[in-house]
Amino acid sequence: MVIAQSGGPSMVINQSLVGAVTEARKSSRIGKILGARHGILGILGNDYIDLRKPTAAKLAAIADTPSSALGSCRKKPTADDCRQIFEAFRKLDVGYFFYIGGNDSADAARIVAEEAEKANYPLVVYHIPKTIDNDLRSCDHTPGFGSAARFVASAIKGDDLDNRALGGVKIDIIMGRDAGFLTAASALARVEPDDGPHLIYLPEVPFSDEKFVKDVKAAMKKFGRCVCAVSEGIRGKDGVPIGAKLGSGETDSHGNVQMSGTGALGDALARLLKAKADVKRVRADTFGYLQRSFPGVASKTDQKEAFAAGQCAVRAALKGELTKGTIAILRAKGKKYQAAFAPQPIANAAKYTRSVPKEYIAKNGHDVTPAFVEYARPLVGDLPKTAIF
Amino acid sequence: MVIAQSGGPSMVINQSLVGAVTEARKSSRIGKILGARHGILGILGNDYIDLRKPTAAKLAAIADTPSSALGSCRKKPTADDCRQIFEAFRKLDVGYFFYIGGNDSADAARIVAEEAEKANYPLVVYHIPKTIDNDLRSCDHTPGFGSAARFVASAIKGDDLDNRALGGVKIDIIMGRDAGFLTAASALARVEPDDGPHLIYLPEVPFSDEKFVKDVKAAMKKFGRCVCAVSEGIRGKDGVPIGAKLGSGETDSHGNVQMSGTGALGDALARLLKAKADVKRVRADTFGYLQRSFPGVASKTDQKEAFAAGQCAVRAALKGELTKGTIAILRAKGKKYQAAFAPQPIANAAKYTRSVPKEYIAKNGHDVTPAFVEYARPLVGDLPKTAIF
Repeated sequence: MVIAQSGGPSMVINQSLVGAVTEARKSSRIGKILGARHGILGILGNDYIDLRKPTAAKLAAIADTPSSALGSCRKKPTADDCRQIFEAFRKLDVGYFFYIGGNDSADAARIVAEEAEKANYPLVVYHIPKTIDNDLRSCDHTPGFGSAARFVASAIKGDDLDNRALGGVKIDIIMGRDAGFLTAASALARVEPDDGPHLIYLPEVPFSDEKFVKDVKAAMKKFGRCVCAVSEGIRGKDGVPIGAKLGSGETDSHGNVQMSGTGALGDALARLLKAKADVKRVRADTFGYLQRSFPGVASKTDQKEAFAAGQCAVRAALKGELTKGTIAILRAKGKKYQAAFAPQPIANAAKYTRSVPKEYIAKNGHDVTPAFVEYARPLVGDLPKTAIF
Repeated sequence: MVIAQSGGPSMVINQSLVGAVTEARKSSRIGKILGARHGILGILGNDYIDLRKPTAAKLAAIADTPSSALGSCRKKPTADDCRQIFEAFRKLDVGYFFYIGGNDSADAARIVAEEAEKANYPLVVYHIPKTIDNDLRSCDHTPGFGSAARFVASAIKGDDLDNRALGGVKIDIIMGRDAGFLTAASALARVEPDDGPHLIYLPEVPFSDEKFVKDVKAAMKKFGRCVCAVSEGIRGKDGVPIGAKLGSGETDSHGNVQMSGTGALGDALARLLKAKADVKRVRADTFGYLQRSFPGVASKTDQKEAFAAGQCAVRAALKGELTKGTIAILRAKGKKYQAAFAPQPIANAAKYTRSVPKEYIAKNGHDVTPAFVEYARPLVGDLPKTAIF
């Protein structure tokens, strides 16, 4: 088998890797366990790590480490790439291919699986879900989201305390190209009735400068201060992300425009408020890559589920019901939160994303509903306790 | 007694508050314990919290909470303000005034103390040190620094793992207006020989675009990737901070120009590298206010010392050796790290700051020495363990 990681790292993507490897090591039907470095690039470049070698202790340490231990890439495989991949797989006698990542990685795995069928190369392909954006259509929630959401909620909690001390408006830009789940998770920071975030802007609701200025003025009047959680993916009525217009214009091979790794959107919104909202102190922070790679902040539930998703993919592949599958993470019915794992066709996770559903977005267009908080709370776990006078 | 907090919040400034209040509650010589809201502004506006009221459990919860629980300000008191303060103090029968903050707050306390002498108002004034910048001349290190340094080192550790996965250049902008201690602390993230940060730029070393581009090119050649820790306070040969030239030009009443709360410096450096260093993927994050207010990341040593500094100030004030003092935190000699606390004249902490000493700066101008790591390690504590293949 070959396993690899793709797309943006997360705090628990290595849990899925180690879950899959641990399960594979138990099976007599799997020989070599090869980890390709930097996703498909490692397969094309014959760059592998022998994953039978590391001790259980080493694997456990890798599982607890944020980011993608095998390295990552953002590569959409072409038909030519696939021919090269099957040639390489034939030499190595590879019958199982596992690809851990988000919707673009699922699509890459789907392309490999379909090309393998066309080429009559016998290959079982499984996508293992990972994305801090929580936007896979196949899942109730995705591994990586709970931990990133935990970082965001903790950061907003601390930042709200900071804003209490010095006042003014604070704008925090949060990751999420198309879906606002991570920005929505900022609401988990609230405990007291006047706790921030006071305003939450998701890509799912068209953003307008006028409404933003009006909302901030109203919050300043009500709370004497204002903390805003803003998705990097907010877009105007034209549907074009505002951050993309301000950014470098750089795109990856899946056609995604760069939006993280720059403070441009936060700075533009701060300038807008200084000019039009009559507030003296406006500060903007962009949480950036810390959201997905900060050590020591992972959600325990997220860690466990990511590990289980990796295990489940290997089990499903060995069972052989589907030759190209993804692992859907669902929510078991009942009062107490519990996740359920189910193999599904890979197309269910590939390419297209899901948005924050309407029932999670407040009618005022700048908040989430209690239903969202109820949905997200068990994924994130309890936050560090804080107190105010 | 009146106690208040001033300047930028930290993760442990409430430890100092609670340390002082706990000690004051033990003394029969202290009657009212009043916490002024938002520093000197609370005294001028007669806005106090009765700090005899909270239970010990409530105080302990406040101590563990980041940011300034009483609220903060950035106000330099005028002679007129002082007259108003003594009038208010006379009515309340205030004989002790404690002000927790950095060099500007120490200077504010010094002004109050000197004006009290001129006005023949009997007042013992103690400054309790706090600054994540670690730049008080009176201290070996300052409460707040260890925790902020722990955030920075953790963030860089995670970000370095992220950079391993996706490559290119990552620029991280770290707080520190004049002193580079916090940026220097990024070096604590290193475990493996090729771990980042690969380049560290402090305000103490004149920054040039040419050297930066050259350094990045060399690091890319050596490591195939590059993580840069850059102080928000870097300045060219003219001594003017580069970030201040790019920023809003906003200043506080101590004359400090705004540099945090904007991504402008990181974005400018990223543009420079894209244009001149021949690197495709360049990302910049500005760690911003999370560095000083993130819950759950505080250093245990820092928490204990901040509490002790508050206690020590109250004890020293009651002893009455100095009528205007600050608490210096020194390092006891010996193999095992231990802090020592000593009352000193308030002027020792006020106004002027200290820089990172030469022996902590590497000769190449873009790194720190092992002596710095040895100095900072016990203040920060062990970081979360991570592993790579």
